Amino acid sequence: MEKHLITFMPDNVSVAVREGTNLLAAAKQAGIDMSSPCGGRGTCGKCAVKVISGSYDSREDAHLSEDLKAQGLVLACKIKVRGPMTVEVPTQSRLTEHKVLLGSKRTRFTKENDFFATRKMNPICHRYCLRLDPPDLVDNQSDWDRLQNALRKQHGLKDATIAISCLQALPAAARLGNWDITVTVGTLLGVPKVLTVEPGHTTRPTYGLAVDIGTTTVVVALLDTATGRILDKAGTYNKQSVYGSDVISRIIYTDDHPEGLALLQKAVLDTLNELIDGLLAKNGIDPREIPVLVHGGNTVMTHLFLGIPATWLRLEPYAPAVTAPPVLRAKELELHINPDALVVTIPSVAAYVGGDITAGVLATQITRSEELTLFIDIGTNGELVLGNNDWLVTCACSAGPAFEGSGIACGMRAMEGAIDSLEIDRETLEAHCGTIGKIKPRGICGSGLICALSELKRAGIIDRAGKMLPHQNQRIRLGSEGMEYVLVWADESGSKQDIVITEGDIKNLLRAKGAILAGIRTMLNLVQLEMQDIARVYIAGGFGNYLNISDSVRIGLLPDLPREKFEYVGNSCIQGAMTVLLSQEGLAESLDLANRMTYLELSNGNQFMDEFISALFIPHTDLNLFPSLQTECPGSAQALRGEQEGDAERPTGAGGPPPSSQES
Amino acid sequence: MEKHLITFMPDNVSVAVREGTNLLAAAKQAGIDMSSPCGGRGTCGKCAVKVISGSYDSREDAHLSEDLKAQGLVLACKIKVRGPMTVEVPTQSRLTEHKVLLGSKRTRFTKENDFFATRKMNPICHRYCLRLDPPDLVDNQSDWDRLQNALRKQHGLKDATIAISCLQALPAAARLGNWDITVTVGTLLGVPKVLTVEPGHTTRPTYGLAVDIGTTTVVVALLDTATGRILDKAGTYNKQSVYGSDVISRIIYTDDHPEGLALLQKAVLDTLNELIDGLLAKNGIDPREIPVLVHGGNTVMTHLFLGIPATWLRLEPYAPAVTAPPVLRAKELELHINPDALVVTIPSVAAYVGGDITAGVLATQITRSEELTLFIDIGTNGELVLGNNDWLVTCACSAGPAFEGSGIACGMRAMEGAIDSLEIDRETLEAHCGTIGKIKPRGICGSGLICALSELKRAGIIDRAGKMLPHQNQRIRLGSEGMEYVLVWADESGSKQDIVITEGDIKNLLRAKGAILAGIRTMLNLVQLEMQDIARVYIAGGFGNYLNISDSVRIGLLPDLPREKFEYVGNSCIQGAMTVLLSQEGLAESLDLANRMTYLELSNGNQFMDEFISALFIPHTDLNLFPSLQTECPGSAQALRGEQEGDAERPTGAGGPPPSSQES
Repeated sequence: MEKHLITFMPDNVSVAVREGTNLLAAAKQAGIDMSSPCGGRGTCGKCAVKVISGSYDSREDAHLSEDLKAQGLVLACKIKVRGPMTVEVPTQSRLTEHKVLLGSKRTRFTKENDFFATRKMNPICHRYCLRLDPPDLVDNQSDWDRLQNALRKQHGLKDATIAISCLQALPAAARLGNWDITVTVGTLLGVPKVLTVEPGHTTRPTYGLAVDIGTTTVVVALLDTATGRILDKAGTYNKQSVYGSDVISRIIYTDDHPEGLALLQKAVLDTLNELIDGLLAKNGIDPREIPVLVHGGNTVMTHLFLGIPATWLRLEPYAPAVTAPPVLRAKELELHINPDALVVTIPSVAAYVGGDITAGVLATQITRSEELTLFIDIGTNGELVLGNNDWLVTCACSAGPAFEGSGIACGMRAMEGAIDSLEIDRETLEAHCGTIGKIKPRGICGSGLICALSELKRAGIIDRAGKMLPHQNQRIRLGSEGMEYVLVWADESGSKQDIVITEGDIKNLLRAKGAILAGIRTMLNLVQLEMQDIARVYIAGGFGNYLNISDSVRIGLLPDLPREKFEYVGNSCIQGAMTVLLSQEGLAESLDLANRMTYLELSNGNQFMDEFISALFIPHTDLNLFPSLQTECPGSAQALRGEQEGDAERPTGAGGPPPSSQES
Repeated sequence: MEKHLITFMPDNVSVAVREGTNLLAAAKQAGIDMSSPCGGRGTCGKCAVKVISGSYDSREDAHLSEDLKAQGLVLACKIKVRGPMTVEVPTQSRLTEHKVLLGSKRTRFTKENDFFATRKMNPICHRYCLRLDPPDLVDNQSDWDRLQNALRKQHGLKDATIAISCLQALPAAARLGNWDITVTVGTLLGVPKVLTVEPGHTTRPTYGLAVDIGTTTVVVALLDTATGRILDKAGTYNKQSVYGSDVISRIIYTDDHPEGLALLQKAVLDTLNELIDGLLAKNGIDPREIPVLVHGGNTVMTHLFLGIPATWLRLEPYAPAVTAPPVLRAKELELHINPDALVVTIPSVAAYVGGDITAGVLATQITRSEELTLFIDIGTNGELVLGNNDWLVTCACSAGPAFEGSGIACGMRAMEGAIDSLEIDRETLEAHCGTIGKIKPRGICGSGLICALSELKRAGIIDRAGKMLPHQNQRIRLGSEGMEYVLVWADESGSKQDIVITEGDIKNLLRAKGAILAGIRTMLNLVQLEMQDIARVYIAGGFGNYLNISDSVRIGLLPDLPREKFEYVGNSCIQGAMTVLLSQEGLAESLDLANRMTYLELSNGNQFMDEFISALFIPHTDLNLFPSLQTECPGSAQALRGEQEGDAERPTGAGGPPPSSQES
């Protein structure tokens, strides 16, 4: 079949594709990372491109905004190539270089960390220098028996097994080192296995990798497992993103395409292998020197990483295929490390409470104290864990993608040019926006949206139900999708378009924040406790670090607790993975934690739905749950009562310092 | 005109032919029956051979299939000899199939067998039909947890693990079968592992393979492991033969060639895979239906099969790399069965007492009785085990390749046309030979050589030291290599050449038989017992089944015991492999046996050498060790005393029935 040359501008990258190829697929082939959160199903309207020249077939672009249509843009996913083409890919349609949360920059992972505060390091993989007894005619037992004896006598390691590659290397290594030998032993639940063999005694470090496989980003940490030093970290976007931005659209992709699961698995393996290649090359480490990799991720990511169908994770009753997968060897996944390296998966709890959460609970050690602790990881889903040293309850609430900027008119991920903080002048209703990278704004990300919701309410632009109130102000106008507030005018915007927040966006945000709060309340109800009983809140995940806590409380996303009770724990998934890498007891504890967490299925019964509906207001229908806000705006309790009977809330116009000066 | 030596493998038969001879004609001359339906006109493409080394002219092979060309084969009929050559003749190019000892033809492996006389079958791999509890919103634990629970509750299998391929298949299989599921579980030393998963309940048998990896031949048995039925067997020559006919020359090949070890491993894997392919195709069984393979072989074969360097097996102090290798998965060796299938190696004892011997001891259950038993496997090496229910001693004596027809002027392997029995007329000194396949003789194999040695001695043609005595008979003549006896004249021979036994051959045979007897005597000395204390002798191995016991005793190869104390046990290696396949206790016992056998290194100290020198006579220097022969030829004890002082033995010419009527 005929092939056509497609050139992408301004990159000036060309690729030859078959007649009829989808243009989005061609872009992927050319290495252009385009935004396509819907996975190419044509529903997100993000993969807009401008055709400079060439012939193509195009289906209707119902999901492309009128604005972009007017600019002559078309959706790449709707185009079939019919001849040579030249196409321009605008910045807003790209997955540009991204802000990936690598986690703590501490170079030592030791005493400061909770887990190792009371425990010694005891890494899964350890290097041993051994002296074997040379054989003679009286003692001609096998080399492997000799090595087993040395492991037992010199290091107390009993019943060791060995990888076949090491058996193949052992005879020459033993003799080359004149019966001095160095081995790496991986010990899993008490069973030691020899993973590398080399002649003589080496003092090189033993390395290990800890990996966070996120839906959006993949992060790898390289550790010296003997000292616990973090030698380097690297992170990037998960290549699976081109098949859909959230786990559900990726599962649908695997269901709709015969090779879908294999493609999704390959995408994340490629992402990880590229990170590993770079990290090892940069640090001058041979891939064979990596005998262990510990990874954590949500349950869908773990399934896809291991090539296990995730189909039933999105279908009631949401039973995962596996929560605690067996330890694999790197060659089974074609990872670019020692082929015999142990690949340890941090166990999940349920379909929507994954190994990332178990890792977080392990890293934060919330089971060590009798204080009631809430662990919260907000992304597309909010994963919540509540408990103490006695019990643990966990649940997942579907917040939707609003906090990740998806389903929001001008939403975007937390990358350069995203508005992440703002204040609205109470008199003029003018907005002053801060952006990531301090460049011209291109859109608004999750933390900006939370800030915006709080400010819109406080400036009296919206009521407690999220409805826009009538104002004589050019920033408040009727847009193509209903009422909207203009945050940034086109001439100040990096995208040369007005950046707005619509009533539809606000509805999505209320649903997102309402789901999280309802999850917290439903768990508390189960154990008959109140929000005020919570002694500590750990906020985890990429989003967590940018979350404005005061605004989050004000909109009713987080419980109304003193600011000092909240603590950001950053990328607690990789922190947990490092804990397992450095501690055999940590691995055992991760399995125990996953077993101990009582999973609360929110779709079972009406309680969550009742809580959810009550939480679709700012901050909540029951203002008594947010006592500090009653002090802040004394009129609001009464106002609420009026609102519940259908009246619009009176704009408060209440002052107070802007959020940016309130937080620091 | 110049003559060149052409050697055909794996037969190891050589023939000297004139420069320019057609290779097909040379093969015929060597007694290799090649397929050539076109009569050598080059049109049928059947006489394909592989030239291992040597110079030749070749015309185009238009009629050779591309497949065979790709394998490096050429048509013998198109080749003219231009120098010495070594040529491999593959099975498919031959008219007759090789005689490979497949072992017992019993179709059931049950009560009659010693091991299962007192024990139930409990195969390593077993299929289980399970009913899983369907998940709901209250119980949405993972599919794998569900399967583990069912294995525990329904079959008492605790702490099961699972192959990643099965985890990948599990979710769909469970739902397709509406939560009825069938799994194959392999249990090794108490740890169960799920190896196959399929929807619904199946009543198909569970299969397993038992394999004997011999230096010369490879044999595979296909079993229904639930019933113990042997469904089929197949055997062929080990493709490693082209790299050397014995283990030492193969080790040398690996040492001398950079890719030698990989080639040797590939050769035996190819041999096994071809056998498996054929066996499964013939029986209509999908390769994925084979979840387990148990193999035994000598220590060198096991090393090469697993790709482990065997270099140090032939160097003092003869330490093997491994005696009990870990259980591998089929994909690690690229075996043509289920990639996750367990590959179990029967453990060795020492460098020259391999898993084949452990398997034999397991199969014959010599540890069950307090009677003193000798287990003997004669090939290039003689492997010996002596013991009872209390203790076991083992040793290996290098017999050399004489019994396999190598290093013997007209020697050949035990295949069609090989002289395997003979008698010599005491008056005329004429020989009457029996051949395998009852066709014209082409050479003489091991059992024929033992018979010949016995007959030459009894007919007075040789003395007790193996020296030819002067006779006026045309059959006794001076050949190019010294004195020789003509067994068959050229006009009666299949090779159109005189078949002779030379004094050099006799020397080799005396060394071979002397080594075996010296090994037996050295072991007995260790435990301060005599040959007459032996209550039972098991004769194992391919050679064993063709061994004439009376002749073997007469030449001093076997101890002088009543005929009823000897028992042929055939291919006891595959019998032991089947025992392990059908019994988890058998596997444990094989490991225990290999540990319990006290290995006696014969090269350590002078005792063996002293015994060896004493055993280089027919039957021995000390005739008191062979009391029945003293009765048979009363003068020989005195004669020996004369001989020890350098005198030639007086020909006895003693009568007695010919061996063929004595044995049956």
